[in-house]
Amino acid sequence: MTSTSPSIDQLVQPHIQGMRGYTPGEQVNQCLKLNTNECAWPPSPSVFAGLAAFVADGLRLYPDPQSARLREAAGKLWNFPAAGILAGNGSDDCLTILYRCLLQPGDRVAVPWPTYGLYDTLAAIQNVEMVHVPWGPDWSLPGEALLASGARMLLIANPNNPSASLISSAELCALAKRFNGLLVVDEAYIDYAPEGSSCIPQLAAHPNMVVLRTCSKSYSLAGARLGFCLGQASLISQMMKVKDSYNVNALTQAVGLAALGDRAYHQRLVADTLAARETLEEGLRKLGWALVPSSGNFVLAAAGPRAGEWYAGLKQRGILVRWWDTPELREYLRITVGQPADQQRLLAALRELGA
Amino acid sequence: MTSTSPSIDQLVQPHIQGMRGYTPGEQVNQCLKLNTNECAWPPSPSVFAGLAAFVADGLRLYPDPQSARLREAAGKLWNFPAAGILAGNGSDDCLTILYRCLLQPGDRVAVPWPTYGLYDTLAAIQNVEMVHVPWGPDWSLPGEALLASGARMLLIANPNNPSASLISSAELCALAKRFNGLLVVDEAYIDYAPEGSSCIPQLAAHPNMVVLRTCSKSYSLAGARLGFCLGQASLISQMMKVKDSYNVNALTQAVGLAALGDRAYHQRLVADTLAARETLEEGLRKLGWALVPSSGNFVLAAAGPRAGEWYAGLKQRGILVRWWDTPELREYLRITVGQPADQQRLLAALRELGA
Repeated sequence: MTSTSPSIDQLVQPHIQGMRGYTPGEQVNQCLKLNTNECAWPPSPSVFAGLAAFVADGLRLYPDPQSARLREAAGKLWNFPAAGILAGNGSDDCLTILYRCLLQPGDRVAVPWPTYGLYDTLAAIQNVEMVHVPWGPDWSLPGEALLASGARMLLIANPNNPSASLISSAELCALAKRFNGLLVVDEAYIDYAPEGSSCIPQLAAHPNMVVLRTCSKSYSLAGARLGFCLGQASLISQMMKVKDSYNVNALTQAVGLAALGDRAYHQRLVADTLAARETLEEGLRKLGWALVPSSGNFVLAAAGPRAGEWYAGLKQRGILVRWWDTPELREYLRITVGQPADQQRLLAALRELGA
Repeated sequence: MTSTSPSIDQLVQPHIQGMRGYTPGEQVNQCLKLNTNECAWPPSPSVFAGLAAFVADGLRLYPDPQSARLREAAGKLWNFPAAGILAGNGSDDCLTILYRCLLQPGDRVAVPWPTYGLYDTLAAIQNVEMVHVPWGPDWSLPGEALLASGARMLLIANPNNPSASLISSAELCALAKRFNGLLVVDEAYIDYAPEGSSCIPQLAAHPNMVVLRTCSKSYSLAGARLGFCLGQASLISQMMKVKDSYNVNALTQAVGLAALGDRAYHQRLVADTLAARETLEEGLRKLGWALVPSSGNFVLAAAGPRAGEWYAGLKQRGILVRWWDTPELREYLRITVGQPADQQRLLAALRELGA
């Protein structure tokens, strides 16, 4: 018998073999983690009460494939029809679904650069071309260049990651109006921005715009994986066909419902984060570092040519921040807002390192 | 100003607009659910202990993107290297990743038909052609026709859903040896089949074969969404690039670890299910129905031309079973094994309906 067994090389698509996987921020045990923009405080106590009371059938049976109660709760919270909301296994899942719904191999997407690296990874997986349009001066929107990119889909993180800078919703709406494709506004960090910054109230008037939200940041549920895509109901219903049939598990639906329901706790989490951000910014400015004005739960600091050295020194001392060895970001550190004592530890370590 | 806003019709790919979404089995409250092959008993008590003790940081921080501890536990359990195991948000997630890794629009996949309907849905999403090869007599493997299909990937649920029939691992290995693509053996129900039925021990010798496993059935964790793909490490490392970066949430990693660790409870769940299956089969045979010999936690019963009527009658009485209005399955009912009292209720209702 002749075996015709093909090799893995022959089986896997070339564009997958050729791509590099996404590198999530390091997850190291026993470290002070100021590197992946999680919330510095735990989620609402009602989340844990919900878990402790979790009934057997919640695990034994399939979850609601539509995440109906969760989407209703989100709709109430954001004053938006539930039929225009998709719940995802994190907003990363919503992004994957958008790419798969809208893009065919060979199509083009564009982002202002630098931004959230996962947008690139998803383009590589879907075998579409990614166009990086450099941000304008002071992280301003490079609208004309984005429009001229030939993209079917534009992705704008607002506030942006890693800069924590903010574009006004009016400017984003004007861009959508002139764009002949879908504008995705990723509002993962919007709860840390001034009120009125969200594009959700503008969605009804801008059918080619969608907004992404996540519970990973201001709801302190990064471990649970829960995100949302808000947009026209006719688009959401197409996206529902592409999602995994049971994409959000029962436990996450339960903790998400509890967290969205505890508005007072959420407001406190955000207020505490904003207060700590101010302290962090003050401390970093005292080092003589220039800061991009932050609308997120993190700060991008111009640490200068020794940024990489300080990143390594902090890591040695058990403190993780984010540093990218790329031309645009080599002289910056991105630091997540931490609890006050942890921030003091960071600042002390930086001074010790000679920063 | 001229608005150039495109319509949703213009934005969404035609193959997505043209497809029908997957229809999961009905999830109806307050019904006796014998329709979606969940386990009739709750998961291990250690799962609930694990949830009650869940620490704040488990939710606040991102989960382990690699699900390392979980994959090690699975590797120990199935005697397989962890580097050859991918953890997914249900095995549906593993399937999606396989489609995206291996198939480009226009490629072909094939399945023996009828089988798990999601394989079709995933083909439609990925814009690939699906070939249905009818099962041979008595649900035997149509090997030659599958090989002649021109598919890059073959998917075989073993035991098959909805027939609960089993193909020997020797036969599947022989097929893999002659196949110039990837053979996916979906072993969602294998724990209910006789020992020695799994293809996992054959994977090392068959580089173009992968095995899928799930915790949704014999571990009673359908709500948690946890599945695995086992195969060559070189293939798994490609699949790791395509999965969502944090595809398995922290809660699911915790309950999965607890469930995989409680082997005694798992054995009891399986034993109880097999005992209840025997009782169910006996009861259905007394109605004069022929049964496909079952290797799953469900039974496919030849209920005859009134099958659809009985499905509807049961539903009216608050009992859900599965019925498909298709040429191949119109005269069958698929019934999940339930707890003994629930099965008695089902059989009584069937007799009442005149079955």
